[in-house]
Amino acid sequence: MTSKTTYRHTVQISEIDFSLRATIVSMIGYILDIAGADADKKGFGIKKLGSENRSWVISRMALDLYRLPNRYETVEIATWVNDYGRLLTTRNFTAADENGSSILAAVTQWAMIDLSTRRPLDLRYVDEYNRHLCIEQTPINNPIKIAAINSQETIVHKITYSDIDFNRHVNSLRYFMLMIDTLPIEFLSNTNPVHIEVNFLHEAQYGDTLTAGYEQRGTKSLFEIKNSSGTVICRASIEWKAETTWKN
Amino acid sequence: MTSKTTYRHTVQISEIDFSLRATIVSMIGYILDIAGADADKKGFGIKKLGSENRSWVISRMALDLYRLPNRYETVEIATWVNDYGRLLTTRNFTAADENGSSILAAVTQWAMIDLSTRRPLDLRYVDEYNRHLCIEQTPINNPIKIAAINSQETIVHKITYSDIDFNRHVNSLRYFMLMIDTLPIEFLSNTNPVHIEVNFLHEAQYGDTLTAGYEQRGTKSLFEIKNSSGTVICRASIEWKAETTWKN
Repeated sequence: MTSKTTYRHTVQISEIDFSLRATIVSMIGYILDIAGADADKKGFGIKKLGSENRSWVISRMALDLYRLPNRYETVEIATWVNDYGRLLTTRNFTAADENGSSILAAVTQWAMIDLSTRRPLDLRYVDEYNRHLCIEQTPINNPIKIAAINSQETIVHKITYSDIDFNRHVNSLRYFMLMIDTLPIEFLSNTNPVHIEVNFLHEAQYGDTLTAGYEQRGTKSLFEIKNSSGTVICRASIEWKAETTWKN
Repeated sequence: MTSKTTYRHTVQISEIDFSLRATIVSMIGYILDIAGADADKKGFGIKKLGSENRSWVISRMALDLYRLPNRYETVEIATWVNDYGRLLTTRNFTAADENGSSILAAVTQWAMIDLSTRRPLDLRYVDEYNRHLCIEQTPINNPIKIAAINSQETIVHKITYSDIDFNRHVNSLRYFMLMIDTLPIEFLSNTNPVHIEVNFLHEAQYGDTLTAGYEQRGTKSLFEIKNSSGTVICRASIEWKAETTWKN
């Protein structure tokens, strides 16, 4: 049993866009980096797993982004693991600005894979969890399954060195970057809250070619990435909320 | 007159590659972020310039990378501005690990542009410099001019939202990422020191298509990026040194 752990991050210039606010991709990047650092700190991160030929891969994410922080703003991000089953463990996040106002809330689900077989392991036998669970409920609903889409716009991208991560597969952030890039750029000037769902379905490898598709359904932008064999690698949705109480 | 300023950075998981060390691109990213943060801290950064419709753009960089730090290693980066002329100002960097051993040394040259005309301004009339120059010599030789190359390999990339920065032009890091991606991937497993030179020649804009070319000449990898009109946007070289005293 443990409590939430907090991390602080100051928004850097490389993380902002022309609106001078952190990009959505940067915010997801903070979450993924903190997930990794926190797992390592508690003894079940890739530092330990790597020596045992195991690693973590993210399966699903649900994220409420209430606002995007400005350059040089410092956000405090809390994280905790509150559940695990046979295949997936749940890591939660909340973040607040220096006034204590909420910036985001997120629920992520992860699988542990054997790096030789690339197959998931049974988490019920990973002892480190017993002493690191934090019995605090998830801050928003669990991630949901996203259905297939009818792409209106597509981007084709060949996977290069800069796309792959320590696991030798495509960095999860890159999928999201590719999907965001299919959007009309005006959408990214939006200052309203967004709700994001991501399903990571298959790994993509160096040298493969990805096609990212986009469909707009009302207030929801839907995304799907396929590899050159037509296998769906990743699906996501961004729901653009109607209004915000936040002002930048 | 002032002294060097230091910043600390801990290598995050998103910044490493399959060698479990920070990527070359991440290291350049630290330098660029610190350049921006330090200029803002001292009153001549984009925070002030933005309100005056001016901004900084990088012109040239020379970088000695003695080794790439490992994940979670903390590096301390010192920076100082020691010179400026009509068109360019010189910002220097050195970085050391927690044992005090050198990680890198760099010299960067920057121009200040008017955001309406996109033309450079005369730096001799920017008062803030007088009190922020640090009379310490540059740690390595100034950046040099890089000649045209004969591309053996090319990558074509259409500029998307994720490529552009706060200045609404392509993020300098993206050019470097694109060039690195033309290399045989085995080069990126290299643990020897490298010497890097970059010339940023023209801005590239959202929607344009870039072609990155690569030529190997002995121990030097040479790179060139052109836009769809054939204008050279950026040239760079990486010299792979023969041996290293560093072991990871």
